[in-house]
Amino acid sequence: MKELKDRILKDGQNLGDGILKVDSFVNHQVDPLLMDACGREFARRFANVGATKILTAEISGIAPALTTAIHLGLPVVYARKHKPITMPDQVYLTLAPSHTKGRMVELIVSPEYMANGEKILIIDDFLASGSTILGLVRLAEASGSSIVGIGALIEKLFEGGRAALEPLGVPIESLACITKMDDGTMEFRE
Amino acid sequence: MKELKDRILKDGQNLGDGILKVDSFVNHQVDPLLMDACGREFARRFANVGATKILTAEISGIAPALTTAIHLGLPVVYARKHKPITMPDQVYLTLAPSHTKGRMVELIVSPEYMANGEKILIIDDFLASGSTILGLVRLAEASGSSIVGIGALIEKLFEGGRAALEPLGVPIESLACITKMDDGTMEFRE
Repeated sequence: MKELKDRILKDGQNLGDGILKVDSFVNHQVDPLLMDACGREFARRFANVGATKILTAEISGIAPALTTAIHLGLPVVYARKHKPITMPDQVYLTLAPSHTKGRMVELIVSPEYMANGEKILIIDDFLASGSTILGLVRLAEASGSSIVGIGALIEKLFEGGRAALEPLGVPIESLACITKMDDGTMEFRE
Repeated sequence: MKELKDRILKDGQNLGDGILKVDSFVNHQVDPLLMDACGREFARRFANVGATKILTAEISGIAPALTTAIHLGLPVVYARKHKPITMPDQVYLTLAPSHTKGRMVELIVSPEYMANGEKILIIDDFLASGSTILGLVRLAEASGSSIVGIGALIEKLFEGGRAALEPLGVPIESLACITKMDDGTMEFRE
């Protein structure tokens, strides 16, 4: 998606060690019109997968998942990283390593909103190693739901997430795919 | 806003101790079309306050702030509760008591996205005691910005947040205002 790629080239910062800072339009400050356009594009790409619900992980996945949900007219569930007091005692919980936090984080979904037989479209901000998305897959499968597609705003192809997710046999779409960011520059897959 | 009030009456759960569970459409699962309608309504109510940026707090504020931002065409910043590695060392940080967590939480904004002279519209999911919103006010004022309006999806009038915020002298709008939820029932201000 040219609009997102151009914005990464203009405002993204390669901080080294594979860390791409997009805090000015995705992760801390959000450009709502860009995010809406990304949601529209995900909705277009996943129009025919038969999704009944969108699943993401708090915090940074919420914005792209919500705009996608608006354009598809589907409910969105965001997995919590801390169990709120409003959640029942019995939950779906999995652990996933956080690249940016350097430790394991919990991903928690209430069975109230993730039922048997849902067709789940996963939307997140980044597809890097795929560990967060694989955690969401485990949560969905634990509930008896199935995954019908995976979308990420920004893919770091060189971190192997796509290879880890391909065995699921579902469409994997990223709106900007970075193939290399070793040396202060970035290369994109066209 | 009738649509939100009706939804609270239909799907909200009064858990006692002033805790209203709206996890099925606001706080864990999000109804994107309702949230979009709420954003449109905030945009209408705050159309003439001259806002240049929207400020909210992660996590549950993101959805209503984002849909408001889409309809106003303004950037939205969400205050972080943990400093990510992409954030500079020098930040605006304040502490606010969390009603649902029973402890103080940090609210952190990067000076990169909160500059001198911004006109800030604060949008959050709940207005209860007002402590989170007052924390956001302190962050904005520390940066030299000013507050031009405050909006919350759901107000619990009996917890005193409106009274705490009124000295700011800016418009305070809630889309559903609960006056009483003592005994398993809820009463709304018309």
